[in-house]
Amino acid sequence: MSLTTSQIKFLSSLGQKKFREEHGLFVVEGVKMVEEAIHQSHFPLKTIYGTSEWIGKNGFLLKDPSLEIVEIKEKELKRISNLKNPNQAFCVCEKGNKSDDKDLKINDLTLYLDRIKDPGNMGTILRIADWFGIENVILSPESVEVFNPKVVQATMGAIFRVSIFEKDFTSFFEEHSDLNFFATTMSGADVFKMKKTKDSVIIIGNESHGISKEIMDKVKEKISIPTFNKSRSESLNAAVATGIICSAFRNL
Amino acid sequence: MSLTTSQIKFLSSLGQKKFREEHGLFVVEGVKMVEEAIHQSHFPLKTIYGTSEWIGKNGFLLKDPSLEIVEIKEKELKRISNLKNPNQAFCVCEKGNKSDDKDLKINDLTLYLDRIKDPGNMGTILRIADWFGIENVILSPESVEVFNPKVVQATMGAIFRVSIFEKDFTSFFEEHSDLNFFATTMSGADVFKMKKTKDSVIIIGNESHGISKEIMDKVKEKISIPTFNKSRSESLNAAVATGIICSAFRNL
Repeated sequence: MSLTTSQIKFLSSLGQKKFREEHGLFVVEGVKMVEEAIHQSHFPLKTIYGTSEWIGKNGFLLKDPSLEIVEIKEKELKRISNLKNPNQAFCVCEKGNKSDDKDLKINDLTLYLDRIKDPGNMGTILRIADWFGIENVILSPESVEVFNPKVVQATMGAIFRVSIFEKDFTSFFEEHSDLNFFATTMSGADVFKMKKTKDSVIIIGNESHGISKEIMDKVKEKISIPTFNKSRSESLNAAVATGIICSAFRNL
Repeated sequence: MSLTTSQIKFLSSLGQKKFREEHGLFVVEGVKMVEEAIHQSHFPLKTIYGTSEWIGKNGFLLKDPSLEIVEIKEKELKRISNLKNPNQAFCVCEKGNKSDDKDLKINDLTLYLDRIKDPGNMGTILRIADWFGIENVILSPESVEVFNPKVVQATMGAIFRVSIFEKDFTSFFEEHSDLNFFATTMSGADVFKMKKTKDSVIIIGNESHGISKEIMDKVKEKISIPTFNKSRSESLNAAVATGIICSAFRNL
């Protein structure tokens, strides 16, 4: 039993945003990620593809009648994969309906990402949110799509656990005026020394341009990570900065 | 004036480790990085290649008689570049003699990287070291080569400022027994709450396998970043973890 040419064409097309949007689907790859998708995903699983070796080892999966499992040959997996080194399993998930605003009740640390563009950074930031128990991450409309395969893989499974919303800053800010907003910049208060509270929203800006003027005008509190380098004004990578800021807020 | 085919072949060959080692050279790309190389590099610059536009804007460069500057066409730049979007300037640097042990006087925070393999992580970690004023970074012999173009670009210039040594752990540990060594693991003391001193060596392990058994056996003190996620045991990205640990040590 083999996949047909049109099935292969369809599955590899999901590497492109256009087709993910058209079909409302995205892909998850590799043994570890597929197993997390099966056990933890809040996105409905459509079909799981696995090599005979992987299916053989994971007999338990076959017991769940709601899962559709298809055996796939190594060379077929190579053709549909977005990875350099495909690894035994591949699955297609439904993006589901976008979480709507009613679900967004915030009373703990939250991230607002303003135009993060690099898929590796986006995935790594979601992984950081997961580590620090941050339930909700809000993305500005111009951010990289979270269903991009590079984002999905870089989350190491966090995409299945963190709730992700897309919302323009002005509406979000107005609807949540009870929260404390902090804009991460190059010249704000030392995040380790300032007063912090749990019901805070940390804003992280674009890799090259930082936080947009629109947001900077609205948010009074600016925070920074102190540097210990006297000679220059280089910044930290956006994901690294997010990790450090989150750790400072969690260790209040 | 154009580059010859053999010049183009030579310059693009420096994208490969084999040829970097054969010639003792490496490449730096893009306007920002090349300008940092000119102003801050401790590696001798061999030749700078720039488009006529870039050279026109940077007349000051031509005043330094020790610099060799070659005009290059956009399409030639595309052929020699390791970037998806080459950006006006490209330069070749000499790797120079490896820093030798005599230069390695440690009396402040230091990183030991045990088999970091991902070029993006290695570059980002060097950038973190630079931010936190960490002068010396020691690499285990099995780490990714720092002159890999992806590492160089990800450092955002830190490669020109941080001193990088390659040394196997046992010799390093024995020669610096006066320092405090800390192994970053999944189950050590909370790095925010433990007692920290300035003359510390933080050890960061491989992305998949963590710190090697040999090192774990020698280093008594284990440290961790506390998680706030109750449901699982996923780790943070190696570079993000390094950033958080360094920030904790710098804000003693």
